[in-house]
Amino acid sequence: MPDESRFLRACRLAPVDRTPVWIMRQAGRYLPEYREIRKQHTLLEICRTPELACEVALQPMRRFDLDAAILFSDLLIPVAAIGVGFDIVEKRGPVLDRPIRTREAISSLVSTADMRKIEYVFETIRLIRDALAGPQFIERRLPVIGFAGAPFTMASYLIEGGPSREFRETKSLMYRDPGAFGDLLNRLSDLVIAYVEAQVAAGVAVVQIFDSWAGALSASEYRRFVLPPTRRVFEAAARLGIPTIHFGTVTGHLLDPMAQAGGDLLSVDWRIPLGDVRRRHPGRGVQGNLDPMALMAPPEVLERMIDDVLAEAGPG
Amino acid sequence: MPDESRFLRACRLAPVDRTPVWIMRQAGRYLPEYREIRKQHTLLEICRTPELACEVALQPMRRFDLDAAILFSDLLIPVAAIGVGFDIVEKRGPVLDRPIRTREAISSLVSTADMRKIEYVFETIRLIRDALAGPQFIERRLPVIGFAGAPFTMASYLIEGGPSREFRETKSLMYRDPGAFGDLLNRLSDLVIAYVEAQVAAGVAVVQIFDSWAGALSASEYRRFVLPPTRRVFEAAARLGIPTIHFGTVTGHLLDPMAQAGGDLLSVDWRIPLGDVRRRHPGRGVQGNLDPMALMAPPEVLERMIDDVLAEAGPG
Repeated sequence: MPDESRFLRACRLAPVDRTPVWIMRQAGRYLPEYREIRKQHTLLEICRTPELACEVALQPMRRFDLDAAILFSDLLIPVAAIGVGFDIVEKRGPVLDRPIRTREAISSLVSTADMRKIEYVFETIRLIRDALAGPQFIERRLPVIGFAGAPFTMASYLIEGGPSREFRETKSLMYRDPGAFGDLLNRLSDLVIAYVEAQVAAGVAVVQIFDSWAGALSASEYRRFVLPPTRRVFEAAARLGIPTIHFGTVTGHLLDPMAQAGGDLLSVDWRIPLGDVRRRHPGRGVQGNLDPMALMAPPEVLERMIDDVLAEAGPG
Repeated sequence: MPDESRFLRACRLAPVDRTPVWIMRQAGRYLPEYREIRKQHTLLEICRTPELACEVALQPMRRFDLDAAILFSDLLIPVAAIGVGFDIVEKRGPVLDRPIRTREAISSLVSTADMRKIEYVFETIRLIRDALAGPQFIERRLPVIGFAGAPFTMASYLIEGGPSREFRETKSLMYRDPGAFGDLLNRLSDLVIAYVEAQVAAGVAVVQIFDSWAGALSASEYRRFVLPPTRRVFEAAARLGIPTIHFGTVTGHLLDPMAQAGGDLLSVDWRIPLGDVRRRHPGRGVQGNLDPMALMAPPEVLERMIDDVLAEAGPG
């Protein structure tokens, strides 16, 4: 199945009959059937209950001709495997029981991640994979996209204790104790590698690594601190034989070092024309570029914006 | 005095004995003497009371060897001149009485700005200028930097009704009714021009135009909607014979069209090395590049980061 999948063929830069489509947050609040489930369960309950997480991941697949399902989960979920507690707070996002801001706090993290603590993630993947191989979906040959946060993005959640705009605590630690900061990124790199391996064993066919906050760094900071542990993640994923997607936003200034870190596909936001990415990194696939706010536009404007993205990306 | 000023010489790319320094928010909450005044007065009261606004602008000049004072005000202040009401809400920022989101709301704005409604701004400038020409400061030859929001940044405040991260309403209007959106930007361009002219008449020696939110747009959107009205502002400022600074953040992808719009100095954030700006735009000055979070670093790290900015910028 995977080799016949339109999405996986595109990931390997093989010819496809049309550009495959999947959408960030394709499972979620815009769907009435998702809101029904959320009436009964918190986001974290859904993430931790394989039957619910599978159902939610399948909801958009029933409505739309999307080319891949994506694991329904939260970026912070794997930190449970190294002993970090957190909650997801309505309208705010993940909030840690205790932020990790000192050398001592970093040293106290569990050094060998225990994946059994998040077995529900892998069971969710198996359920989604099996459902996509069942009579309702089998003809569409849909792969499951797995995902994980990149080491820097994970680190900034742990250090800030929740979502941030300025990354004051993260950068303070980086400036004040670069050794401890590097140690944290290495530990998170180990965690992400173990997490990706377990996702692949459970059945994901491609993995997206989210470095959602890397754009807050300068290129020299990225090269010094973030590139080496991130490259380790992509090297490990490559050994597993699956395609990888390197996701960033506000990363125009990091395009080259992020490409150096890895990723068969480079995923960029609306600020970077896809043609620029392809010219600078021939041999890589490209993903993204449509402004999420385009979904607020009248249909004919949205269509034109999509056409523009495809035209700018060029053939292939 | 102005021609002898280190800052103004640098603005004109003339030789200077050292790189001049001023700091974003150099007047503000980090100063105990500012917090004393804030105990008695709201931010808006300070902006609207020339004696207070002047005092606050001078506070950092007494403590530090800065090379320019900057008008103490808020980006939204001039909208009072076209009949828009707003308040500044603690920890949130400026919030409009009624957001401007329709063609009708845009048409109802006062078309000829009445600068007498914000006479306190110009009186503040005169007070600062006179104080800097007084015995305490005269030898330092300090100019006053005036400022205004660029048309797009002003428009997004008016449309969103306050600060925003996603610019959902702004982009919705741009997609849905590009004619009305363009009309609003043109009106704000007229307002900003009148505002800058009045600031120069009152005594500012240089003007910084803040396009703080332009980075949320793609380059093609910027070129279509934002470049023409912004260029009108810089052309008007150039006719006044004062140097201009074009400020942006997250604008790596807009560096070329923003330079086309104007600005003797291009001000960029830590994501764009100054050397890149100079290579791509020879003949322009450069400003910025130090990450504000560097102020959280230990002094020796902060010094190294400053050295790196200067080294990357190169000589001149």
